[in-house]
Amino acid sequence: MRQFIVIGHDAPTTPDFSLDDLAGGAGRLDALCRCVNSAFFLSHDFRSDVRLFLVLQDELTIRFEGSELRRLNPDERSTAALIRKALEVKSEAIGHMEAESTPGVHVSKRDFEAVLTDASEDATVIELHEDGTPVVDVEPPENPLFVLSDHGDFTDSEAGLLAEASDERVRLGPSLLHGNHAMTVAHNYLDTRGYTDY
Amino acid sequence: MRQFIVIGHDAPTTPDFSLDDLAGGAGRLDALCRCVNSAFFLSHDFRSDVRLFLVLQDELTIRFEGSELRRLNPDERSTAALIRKALEVKSEAIGHMEAESTPGVHVSKRDFEAVLTDASEDATVIELHEDGTPVVDVEPPENPLFVLSDHGDFTDSEAGLLAEASDERVRLGPSLLHGNHAMTVAHNYLDTRGYTDY
Repeated sequence: MRQFIVIGHDAPTTPDFSLDDLAGGAGRLDALCRCVNSAFFLSHDFRSDVRLFLVLQDELTIRFEGSELRRLNPDERSTAALIRKALEVKSEAIGHMEAESTPGVHVSKRDFEAVLTDASEDATVIELHEDGTPVVDVEPPENPLFVLSDHGDFTDSEAGLLAEASDERVRLGPSLLHGNHAMTVAHNYLDTRGYTDY
Repeated sequence: MRQFIVIGHDAPTTPDFSLDDLAGGAGRLDALCRCVNSAFFLSHDFRSDVRLFLVLQDELTIRFEGSELRRLNPDERSTAALIRKALEVKSEAIGHMEAESTPGVHVSKRDFEAVLTDASEDATVIELHEDGTPVVDVEPPENPLFVLSDHGDFTDSEAGLLAEASDERVRLGPSLLHGNHAMTVAHNYLDTRGYTDY
């Protein structure tokens, strides 16, 4: 299974935002919606063997489970509407227990550390870093977990947790990419088994 | 210079669409907006050496010129608003002459064939095809032109024109990708000079 954690530093944790202003008033939720798109969509197909966690303001986490998702569309607005639905049921999530808002979309009151601990249990944690090993030189792991940030950089605390948990530190190319683009490149690296299998 | 042509089969050619319904009433303009995002954005940086053509219903073309663009944001909605502005000035575009709506955004009454002819003049035309050569085995050209379709397949006529113009026929991996994801993978292939330079 492929897992991704994306940290949304300014993303809303309450459903009172407008779908008309995702890039403004909704704390750059547009960036997270593009990550959802990159995680799951193929042309005329769907990546059901993917799990994506969106960590919102280090207090709330929305898990998208590829094998269960039913109503996901590629555009930012409808994805944001699914996230809003998840935020509407967050009071049903007690402690680290999750509540499901729509098929395959689960919300919990977990912070980055808790999610990273859970998700990394049977996974190879991959840190994307500009000083990392070229990804082409790294054997693609069977169960990778990539950790990414939204439009902002990791905080020192997040970077520390990630450095401690990471099994590999790689770079995807000479240019720094947006999170959603990095996810697409990561998928392509895995799809091709490290650029060998087309 | 890197060039991309993206064909929008159902995309609007008039500005009377709602920004609230890009994935529905606006003929899947959301898909084209994501291609604009993939063409130009880097983390904290911008790909100014890129030119993107959106061909709308084979009758109208919007050219995004990276070196001139000023007001582009990553989200679908604001990109759609730029496209709507371009459609508002289309009457100023006479024949194949362009009209500029906002900095770096130009509209003309050109169809796919005309755009392909112009754009391919000094470019290596790359056709993405599931039976193509693995991209990792192809030397990255200096001035590539990639031609992609929106959520729909190429028509027979488009596929014929493309096959005739193409210098290389490649595949990016074992899975068929959405246009915007294919563009991100293509950029990564070029950024790394064919997965050799990180």
